[in-house]
Amino acid sequence: MRGNIEKWDYFELTLRAEAAGNPFVDVDFAVTFSMGHRRVVVDGFYDGDSCFLARFMPDVKGDWQFVTTSNEPELDGITGGFTCVAPSADNHGPVRVIDPYHFAYEDGTAYHPVGTTCYVWNLQGDALEEETLETLASAPFNKMRMCVFPKRYSYNANEPPSYPFEGEPTHTWDPSQLGNRYYTDIPDCWDFTRFNPAYFRHLEQRILELRALNIEADLIIFHPYDCGAWGFDKMPAEVNDRYLKYLVARLAAFRNIWWSFANEFDLMPAHSLADWDHYFKLVQQHDPYNHLRSNHNARTFYDHGKPWVTHCSIQRHDMTQIPRWQKEYQKPVIVDECGYEGDIGRAFGSFTAEELVARHWQGFGTGGYVGHGECYEHDEDILWWSKGGQLYGDSPVRLAFLREIIEAAPPPGLFPLSTNRAVRDMLLDRPYNGITVGHNGEDYLLIYYWTHQLKFLRLALPANKTYRIDIIDTWNMTITEADASASDLVMIELPRRPYIAVRVERVE
Amino acid sequence: MRGNIEKWDYFELTLRAEAAGNPFVDVDFAVTFSMGHRRVVVDGFYDGDSCFLARFMPDVKGDWQFVTTSNEPELDGITGGFTCVAPSADNHGPVRVIDPYHFAYEDGTAYHPVGTTCYVWNLQGDALEEETLETLASAPFNKMRMCVFPKRYSYNANEPPSYPFEGEPTHTWDPSQLGNRYYTDIPDCWDFTRFNPAYFRHLEQRILELRALNIEADLIIFHPYDCGAWGFDKMPAEVNDRYLKYLVARLAAFRNIWWSFANEFDLMPAHSLADWDHYFKLVQQHDPYNHLRSNHNARTFYDHGKPWVTHCSIQRHDMTQIPRWQKEYQKPVIVDECGYEGDIGRAFGSFTAEELVARHWQGFGTGGYVGHGECYEHDEDILWWSKGGQLYGDSPVRLAFLREIIEAAPPPGLFPLSTNRAVRDMLLDRPYNGITVGHNGEDYLLIYYWTHQLKFLRLALPANKTYRIDIIDTWNMTITEADASASDLVMIELPRRPYIAVRVERVE
Repeated sequence: MRGNIEKWDYFELTLRAEAAGNPFVDVDFAVTFSMGHRRVVVDGFYDGDSCFLARFMPDVKGDWQFVTTSNEPELDGITGGFTCVAPSADNHGPVRVIDPYHFAYEDGTAYHPVGTTCYVWNLQGDALEEETLETLASAPFNKMRMCVFPKRYSYNANEPPSYPFEGEPTHTWDPSQLGNRYYTDIPDCWDFTRFNPAYFRHLEQRILELRALNIEADLIIFHPYDCGAWGFDKMPAEVNDRYLKYLVARLAAFRNIWWSFANEFDLMPAHSLADWDHYFKLVQQHDPYNHLRSNHNARTFYDHGKPWVTHCSIQRHDMTQIPRWQKEYQKPVIVDECGYEGDIGRAFGSFTAEELVARHWQGFGTGGYVGHGECYEHDEDILWWSKGGQLYGDSPVRLAFLREIIEAAPPPGLFPLSTNRAVRDMLLDRPYNGITVGHNGEDYLLIYYWTHQLKFLRLALPANKTYRIDIIDTWNMTITEADASASDLVMIELPRRPYIAVRVERVE
Repeated sequence: MRGNIEKWDYFELTLRAEAAGNPFVDVDFAVTFSMGHRRVVVDGFYDGDSCFLARFMPDVKGDWQFVTTSNEPELDGITGGFTCVAPSADNHGPVRVIDPYHFAYEDGTAYHPVGTTCYVWNLQGDALEEETLETLASAPFNKMRMCVFPKRYSYNANEPPSYPFEGEPTHTWDPSQLGNRYYTDIPDCWDFTRFNPAYFRHLEQRILELRALNIEADLIIFHPYDCGAWGFDKMPAEVNDRYLKYLVARLAAFRNIWWSFANEFDLMPAHSLADWDHYFKLVQQHDPYNHLRSNHNARTFYDHGKPWVTHCSIQRHDMTQIPRWQKEYQKPVIVDECGYEGDIGRAFGSFTAEELVARHWQGFGTGGYVGHGECYEHDEDILWWSKGGQLYGDSPVRLAFLREIIEAAPPPGLFPLSTNRAVRDMLLDRPYNGITVGHNGEDYLLIYYWTHQLKFLRLALPANKTYRIDIIDTWNMTITEADASASDLVMIELPRRPYIAVRVERVE
């Protein structure tokens, strides 16, 4: 049983036991991992076929011991251990919040989320899912919003290959219910006391494949796109709790997991605000690794100021509000949904690439983060936003360019203008609403002009420092060093077209 | 003394009197105009050189009589009359609010404000002022925001040709005070008890020249762009009151006057909220014609819900909020400042024409109104936004195109989507934030897609009506009839580029 596990990978213990009754609900099974005085208790779970598993993500190198506890004698008192070794080059650990604006991997490596959304790419069958992974391998994204449950919505008429609970749908879904969030019947075809382990094993496979691509899985636990198809949006309270604990037991050992409690939580009338608070606290209590936790809104924000929320996960269309939310919540802001590139007959999925890229620059430019999605009409309804597949749009290559620029900025990243009065004074023509300014102290500024087309930028730079000034065309993806004597009062000629950024960086 | 005055033109009475003391403050002079049982009292004013004037704008055809009252015997008890005749073709009377969204001229002719801003065009000397009038003669604008007082600001370093009060500046202005709204000294060079009538006669000349061009004068009574240059932003309370009454006495008889109490009232620390309320009520009490009254914000709105406010005059950059303000205040919304086309080093004055035109369509498309301005760098600092002169931008021709389309819609104009559930149901792909929809009942819809690039529009039109559907390219200014069987379920192919609008109009 002793093997080598790299730090932030996971150790998996598999035990077999022929338990009486329903092992999903009747068997308690946990494992205590220890090293020296440290003890970490993880919940195990039933994986079917008489197999009980427990997974553990070590965060310290060295020899770890474990002992099991269970109400099932066959699973109780088993001991063993493993050796945790150095992580491989691409393994930087889970993502953490490091200050009120920024994230980083646990090993200190900078992490700036450049996210995309393919809500149910993992429920489309192997051929399309593998195509999605292939696309992701050369895409700029390092975070994926995806759902546990299947989705019923425009362009999403298909059934998933399997279901999360034991049972098969016996009812015929009524298409007139599409978009009906108040559909009240819960189909009686599911045995909510028995998960379908194969469903979750498949989910895990896809999450681990994302991990191999250095993509965080921003896992959406509940969502409102059910409309009477399956009833997973309105399960009984004890089922929701069991589901949450089962998810944590199965997935928390994967370093790239983030818990997103819902997409558009405020469109789910079966869950009260107190329910959401309860879900957060339940997961916080059971997840030994303290993975990131958020709750994504449609119209009304969940209160991101609550102590169990690690960062703001927001749907809004006006990125100039990001500094206000940063100030209000004192937590990193990710606008996961600001609208998507596409051409479908819905406002959210029909933005030009220019607009989506501009919103990204507006958000990233003040130390916030913005997410991508794509909704081009497709003969087989394979839209990236929901099913993955291929990317057809003009934004991803430009988001790759943006990512390079953001990652080249000094750690931990950019801060909004309001946090530094000296930087404000360097900008002689006072910027405000609509011009985006971020900085990292006085030695690094990024100014983004969106649909402004300035002729000049005037700066008053400290006389005792030397700066390099670059004019960045965010659409054409060019970086041109400005012709300016980069000290003291600087007058920089700009190209008088939209989508221009200026980077000011100290060189000595 | 009996002559013919056309309806909504003005009758002017001039009397001479050698009054003792200071005629600006010591002489009360009013004239009561009457026709049948109707009596209208107007305040007269001292115009210098022993001349006392009173002006009256008749709104009913027929014979009017007048009698003067004064504490100066030479001005008291004078009687006379004039005949009010039919208005000429271009004279439709003053602009009124006709419903919670719309304006119209008093004769019922539709009026949709397509405004521009040249804050102090009237204080630039005759050559430039005449050039401005020439530009306006072929521009699409029917409203002009302009100030009574001179302006000191970036690009506004010049002194006005004359001053509103007796006196000459004796102090040297300190350029370091530019932008200092808290400058507290009031220069002692003015005799605030004596107006300079020539200054106001010049203002009147320019307002009447606008009237001849069918342009409403949205007159800005106070503004914060003084910075210690003249002190007109912080005059004593009794001077402010006398100034307001003098303005009303001189200008209220001009049918194209609107009272805009301030530009950026919330940047004027010398005036409290109670002061602004008082100014509104004072003007409401003295203006016999009930001209439009508003107060324009920088950051914080003046409460447009107050009963003396006729419409919302707003500075904001997000036009998708207009339906919210319409609903909240139940008064017409004009966003006089959403940003200006230009290339100067300030966010407000550096938008592309595309962005400014798009914001206009967003606003007009829901029955709101948006204003134009232009700030291109100029060798002599002649920027349209402040001084007038020529227009260099690409937006005016497109605003003329927009104006034609809005004026071709059924009166009284468009309403926001929220006011008609049946229209909402006609839009099969539910629009929301970011797609602009206005209507005039079920027989006229205007959908504006901004930076969306839809492939299709699907409509469910009433089967018993026939519609014409036009695809409008708002940037290239083309109107193309859609290839669609315009009844019942309609699928319209769209050009998949931004800045497209669709007009649906019943033909039988």
